[in-house]
Amino acid sequence: MTDLIFRSDVLVKFKDSMPHQNLDDSIIEAMLVSSDKDDDLMAELLDIPKTEGRIRFLMKKRHGTPFEHNAMKFYVEAPIFVFREWHRHRIGQSYNEQSARYSELPPMFYVPGVERPLIQQGKPGNQTTVPGTEDQWRFTDEIIRKNSAVCYEHYLQLLGAGIAKEVARMVLPVNIFSKMYCTLNARSLMAFLSLRTKEEPMYVENEEPVTFDGVTYPPGFILIKRDEPGGAMYPSGPLWEIEQAARITEAVFSALFPMTYRAWCDFGRVAP
Amino acid sequence: MTDLIFRSDVLVKFKDSMPHQNLDDSIIEAMLVSSDKDDDLMAELLDIPKTEGRIRFLMKKRHGTPFEHNAMKFYVEAPIFVFREWHRHRIGQSYNEQSARYSELPPMFYVPGVERPLIQQGKPGNQTTVPGTEDQWRFTDEIIRKNSAVCYEHYLQLLGAGIAKEVARMVLPVNIFSKMYCTLNARSLMAFLSLRTKEEPMYVENEEPVTFDGVTYPPGFILIKRDEPGGAMYPSGPLWEIEQAARITEAVFSALFPMTYRAWCDFGRVAP
Amino acid sequence: MTDLIFRSDVLVKFKDSMPHQNLDDSIIEAMLVSSDKDDDLMAELLDIPKTEGRIRFLMKKRHGTPFEHNAMKFYVEAPIFVFREWHRHRIGQSYNEQSARYSELPPMFYVPGVERPLIQQGKPGNQTTVPGTEDQWRFTDEIIRKNSAVCYEHYLQLLGAGIAKEVARMVLPVNIFSKMYCTLNARSLMAFLSLRTKEEPMYVENEEPVTFDGVTYPPGFILIKRDEPGGAMYPSGPLWEIEQAARITEAVFSALFPMTYRAWCDFGRVAP
Amino acid sequence: MTDLIFRSDVLVKFKDSMPHQNLDDSIIEAMLVSSDKDDDLMAELLDIPKTEGRIRFLMKKRHGTPFEHNAMKFYVEAPIFVFREWHRHRIGQSYNEQSARYSELPPMFYVPGVERPLIQQGKPGNQTTVPGTEDQWRFTDEIIRKNSAVCYEHYLQLLGAGIAKEVARMVLPVNIFSKMYCTLNARSLMAFLSLRTKEEPMYVENEEPVTFDGVTYPPGFILIKRDEPGGAMYPSGPLWEIEQAARITEAVFSALFPMTYRAWCDFGRVAP
Repeated sequence: MTDLIFRSDVLVKFKDSMPHQNLDDSIIEAMLVSSDKDDDLMAELLDIPKTEGRIRFLMKKRHGTPFEHNAMKFYVEAPIFVFREWHRHRIGQSYNEQSARYSELPPMFYVPGVERPLIQQGKPGNQTTVPGTEDQWRFTDEIIRKNSAVCYEHYLQLLGAGIAKEVARMVLPVNIFSKMYCTLNARSLMAFLSLRTKEEPMYVENEEPVTFDGVTYPPGFILIKRDEPGGAMYPSGPLWEIEQAARITEAVFSALFPMTYRAWCDFGRVAP
Repeated sequence: MTDLIFRSDVLVKFKDSMPHQNLDDSIIEAMLVSSDKDDDLMAELLDIPKTEGRIRFLMKKRHGTPFEHNAMKFYVEAPIFVFREWHRHRIGQSYNEQSARYSELPPMFYVPGVERPLIQQGKPGNQTTVPGTEDQWRFTDEIIRKNSAVCYEHYLQLLGAGIAKEVARMVLPVNIFSKMYCTLNARSLMAFLSLRTKEEPMYVENEEPVTFDGVTYPPGFILIKRDEPGGAMYPSGPLWEIEQAARITEAVFSALFPMTYRAWCDFGRVAP
Repeated sequence: MTDLIFRSDVLVKFKDSMPHQNLDDSIIEAMLVSSDKDDDLMAELLDIPKTEGRIRFLMKKRHGTPFEHNAMKFYVEAPIFVFREWHRHRIGQSYNEQSARYSELPPMFYVPGVERPLIQQGKPGNQTTVPGTEDQWRFTDEIIRKNSAVCYEHYLQLLGAGIAKEVARMVLPVNIFSKMYCTLNARSLMAFLSLRTKEEPMYVENEEPVTFDGVTYPPGFILIKRDEPGGAMYPSGPLWEIEQAARITEAVFSALFPMTYRAWCDFGRVAP
Repeated sequence: MTDLIFRSDVLVKFKDSMPHQNLDDSIIEAMLVSSDKDDDLMAELLDIPKTEGRIRFLMKKRHGTPFEHNAMKFYVEAPIFVFREWHRHRIGQSYNEQSARYSELPPMFYVPGVERPLIQQGKPGNQTTVPGTEDQWRFTDEIIRKNSAVCYEHYLQLLGAGIAKEVARMVLPVNIFSKMYCTLNARSLMAFLSLRTKEEPMYVENEEPVTFDGVTYPPGFILIKRDEPGGAMYPSGPLWEIEQAARITEAVFSALFPMTYRAWCDFGRVAP
């Protein structure tokens, strides 16, 4: 029998970028083509150092195009059910994925690690997944490993009988690994992250009337921006595995574009 | 001399849609393909009638794709400087515009009406336009009319000398009218409107510390959702003329998709 | 044990369109906005009835935008491996697919019918699939049915143990059925069809020198347009199952846009 | 009076790319993720060195996505009527253009050079522009210079009266210069070039029946690939000025991606 490889991770490797350094500056370079260069005043008013001030201004006003004149290229290894979600992002993302028509897929499968929440909780429209018991995790692990082995054995039998790869692969489960290159820019990456990471909302709603500035606001009407950065104006409920991948791209993004990243978090993680 | 036509309006005519009726329902039809049909519970929980509840849920969570399975077609007449901005919207918008290479442009020009603000105010990064004096308006009106006449006369002279239309049009100013068909869906229309209409923010910032729910928040940290609907989470500063056009498409949108429109306004006018 | 449903078809149902009738005419309506209306001469020259002449002109010159001011909506049922390919079409296509996170997938699986070619032939870069022996088909059919049953049984066991749907589905194979709505326009449909249908090339290459019009052409340099319509300038090698789906959309397209369809075939099935 | 600057050129400057070197290789890197790596056979069969063989294979089969994992950034100075056409390319192109709302446009105008064809010839649907007489060129030059001066004078008068930049600019003609950054990838650049450069067709049509390979073909049915490379399968009739800009991007493209460029020309200049 073939030796199967089981993994509980999703691999995302940063490969290349344009420009190579000082990526935040490229945003300002693009921005300045649209205005007079002598805009010291604007930065002054915003009372923060010039480049960061300009980036925060663009983010707040949702002037999105200056964030497109750059590129990041990633290499990704993930199970098919993750690629299925990723590829639904159509704008400003380029993909090249392994083809099961042209290549024989190796026996590498995803199985949830112990930290992967297994149980769905909450009412429809407001569900989350929470950790299962140790027994549930063991049972899940066992079934998925067994299932992967059976399917791959069927795959090999069909290939062995001379059946075309594109037909034989019909027996493969969606937890088999695939790989791709993905190329995008800072704007499309922010759109991706806004939907594929889960952050607490940056507000809470009042349960009693609140009087403020002379006006009394009814319950449900007060929003409080959290003190910590990073809250989301429109919180998402992403699949756990795609969030793992997204968090790696977020780390790369924050390293390459530190000012852009801070501004995006501070203004609610909505893509400009 | 040719008689020139001067207009101070932008014409937007609704031409056709898919579906023809009950457009909000088409959003739910698309949404339900992704879930079990028996989701009465969700709407119940949200405590609002079923279809509206579902639409509000999609909007709040930024599940955007159900808003794409529809189409609206508009016919637009506007000066070139408006089309210049409109055509920067690349996603989910289709355009066919009059060509000054293939057709001779008629002598129809835009001139600001009395209600058009003429004066720029405020510091860089936070400017608005406000009404000018009557003298300023008269002067502007006069100069623009004279300029249009001179340019069009030059245009006719070049055409008269046998010069190709695509060369002769180089003398035409950006306030000459053009026309186009524009086809888009509810999602791309919301993206367009979020940038091309000006709404007050749906929050105010506290100037003094505020204590709420046991936590004291420093100045600049409290957001207050306005009581009236329609505030914008990310306010824009659109050009006056493109906002006139956008407002007509907004009126059509609110008539065709009343529930979607309300939900979009209530959740801050950010496209899902 | 659960009763499994096996299907060898892909279902594509036409649901709605904009406009409802005379869709070819909408192309001309869009085209005419860009030119003087009095273009009888052009059609005359082309020596074909006016509307058809204009459409053929647009197609030949690859003036693509007039083909975008329309919409078609389809409902599709297909195995996951077909959706995987379909969703790679990013431009001008909108999708809403069933979610295995939010709904329990029913036990419906794809199994190749007897007419589905099973064997890969030819050298790399020039491969086709051809029918297998009856034994090969029987073996394939048996393995795929068995595999589907085992996987679905594992799926139910995980669900039965309280595991979240989004985790349990990891054991499901890519031949399980899913469903979606897909909305697109004539231009994006032509791009889809050009890659997802297989037509013979519309040319042959000469193997010996040919003299023509006074010039002698070396081997490999003569192209002969086929007498029958429908040949492809850039032949594709699509997956059999997605071609079945594409052919249904092609039939709808040819019925709704008869002139556009003919012109597209005559000019080599390249999207304008 | 203000000194006006007149130019007859369009400036396109290459600014940056990803990767920095060996850009053709990045296409193969992306391609190979989709197949088994050991594909020497394919290249062998194609009887050309490996990388070039693979690129030609992708181009011929219109496998387009491997051509997207790269980026090129350009700085462009051109009159507004050129940007109007350029910005109609929506897919895979990012733009940041000077804003006449935020900045005062300098007095720089386009005027046709002596090599710019001035006269339209041919019947509708098949027109070209050809050189005018020296008198026609002189007349055109004079009118356009005069028109530019009058318009800019009106612009300054409005600004001098305190009118907002976004209103004052309504008097400016479409031959005034603007500037932008444009970022795109090899695939979107090929789509741009296929429509914005004019190449002779790569075929001729027979006027008399021709017998070939035992079959007699009626007139209009034989296509002959030209011996020289670079012919277009779908010839375009671009505006002269945008073609000047496109040719510079084409030169950069051919230098950065020499193999891709050759393959694209050899297979009819249709974007994969």
